[in-house]
Amino acid sequence: MASAGDYPHQLALPTRWHDNDVYGHVNNVDYYAFFDTVINQWLIAEGGLDIHKGQAIGLCAESHCSFTGPLAFPETVTAGLRVGKLGKSSVRYEIGLFGQDGAQAAEGWFVHVFVDRETRTSVPIPDSVREALQRLEA
Amino acid sequence: MASAGDYPHQLALPTRWHDNDVYGHVNNVDYYAFFDTVINQWLIAEGGLDIHKGQAIGLCAESHCSFTGPLAFPETVTAGLRVGKLGKSSVRYEIGLFGQDGAQAAEGWFVHVFVDRETRTSVPIPDSVREALQRLEA
Amino acid sequence: MASAGDYPHQLALPTRWHDNDVYGHVNNVDYYAFFDTVINQWLIAEGGLDIHKGQAIGLCAESHCSFTGPLAFPETVTAGLRVGKLGKSSVRYEIGLFGQDGAQAAEGWFVHVFVDRETRTSVPIPDSVREALQRLEA
Amino acid sequence: MASAGDYPHQLALPTRWHDNDVYGHVNNVDYYAFFDTVINQWLIAEGGLDIHKGQAIGLCAESHCSFTGPLAFPETVTAGLRVGKLGKSSVRYEIGLFGQDGAQAAEGWFVHVFVDRETRTSVPIPDSVREALQRLEA
Repeated sequence: MASAGDYPHQLALPTRWHDNDVYGHVNNVDYYAFFDTVINQWLIAEGGLDIHKGQAIGLCAESHCSFTGPLAFPETVTAGLRVGKLGKSSVRYEIGLFGQDGAQAAEGWFVHVFVDRETRTSVPIPDSVREALQRLEA
Repeated sequence: MASAGDYPHQLALPTRWHDNDVYGHVNNVDYYAFFDTVINQWLIAEGGLDIHKGQAIGLCAESHCSFTGPLAFPETVTAGLRVGKLGKSSVRYEIGLFGQDGAQAAEGWFVHVFVDRETRTSVPIPDSVREALQRLEA
Repeated sequence: MASAGDYPHQLALPTRWHDNDVYGHVNNVDYYAFFDTVINQWLIAEGGLDIHKGQAIGLCAESHCSFTGPLAFPETVTAGLRVGKLGKSSVRYEIGLFGQDGAQAAEGWFVHVFVDRETRTSVPIPDSVREALQRLEA
Repeated sequence: MASAGDYPHQLALPTRWHDNDVYGHVNNVDYYAFFDTVINQWLIAEGGLDIHKGQAIGLCAESHCSFTGPLAFPETVTAGLRVGKLGKSSVRYEIGLFGQDGAQAAEGWFVHVFVDRETRTSVPIPDSVREALQRLEA
């Protein structure tokens, strides 16, 4: 089984009260919120992505998650991130989620297509973002 | 392209203010919240699933979504639901999401494994739930 | 006790799977999501508020909720909305939430201050919005 | 203006991608999610509250927030927590939220009433929880 250390970038994501659903564990939907967060945090902090005014924005084209173990508030989740495939205008991320004990809780992937903010047509990945993504290539 | 009428069950899901993210459309994560909602609403209303006290509960083992168009608050989304594969203790749902104009916004699937509420080990799908799921088979 | 009919505008808000928290009822936080939704739906549909490009936007300055009864997925909540005080650049809304059986679940209020989208300094409420709000005055 | 250090307990709450709404800042509703999280994290970690099986649970009876400044993903929020009033079966918390630069973003309060998990009638605050709350008294 994978560990967080298998991923070139890791981010600590403390859970919140309402991540837990009626069955007592983090709801499956929130796993995707963790994906979105670890990815965009990297794009902003390392790639200089300007989510408020930048011309190129990343939209999710496809995502997938295999749930392999439970997570529960109040534990802190670790999200591992790497880049599986880096294209001209799209990127496929691979994400692992790990509980506080280090056990894997999920394995997923997520495809971003970069588009123009106004026209929503595909554009090349901006250079600074590409450079940040290259550092996460497997 | 598919239409909501291709699915044996449809549910209207009005969007909420904060479904929209900073890019002005419903966040990809919320698409999975729509999946969870159309599925569980059916299990409760038609299959008699007791989410509070029932011994068998459905946990998400795997899910996937292809995003084919935008959705935005305040439109009402229609979720279409069918059963792709019905096993002994697991079921694979196929879901389509459609905007107010009828255009498809997403196509996804979602696997529920039924487990015992306490031990979290796999159990057969309860009869009343199975019967409700059979009515959604393709 | 109040009923939805005491409010000049009502909106049906179907609950979602993950509105329920670990205690089995709609989480207190989601009550405020219902407030935000019934308010903004009215501003957009009746007041012509353009949340994507409009120069004036409404920001929440203060909000409050008294929780008087439970709500639970999969019931449909009715939100009642009226305007308690309409100022030059701010408005105080009064909101009631009601369960599927008509019983009141919450009573709250919410203050919007209208500001310029760029400078975030206070601006007069746009005429079309003001007109829509006047129709909700108590 | 207050600072996080004015509160006897502080918790770091990294924001998530979708905390930001269409206006580019953390949605007002999520402020209450931060309240819920800093409170329950304390009750569990310090008061031994068992949210899954414990007989006494805390339900929100009333909450309030004054929004005094913006917060935005990807900053880390600091939540400050103190106890304003500790009754026999209820407690009033006072919460401050602070941005990464230390500026106050919100001041709020939140009332928990402890009830029996099954009957939902009021019960005394459990001893271990009371002890943890006393340490947060102003």
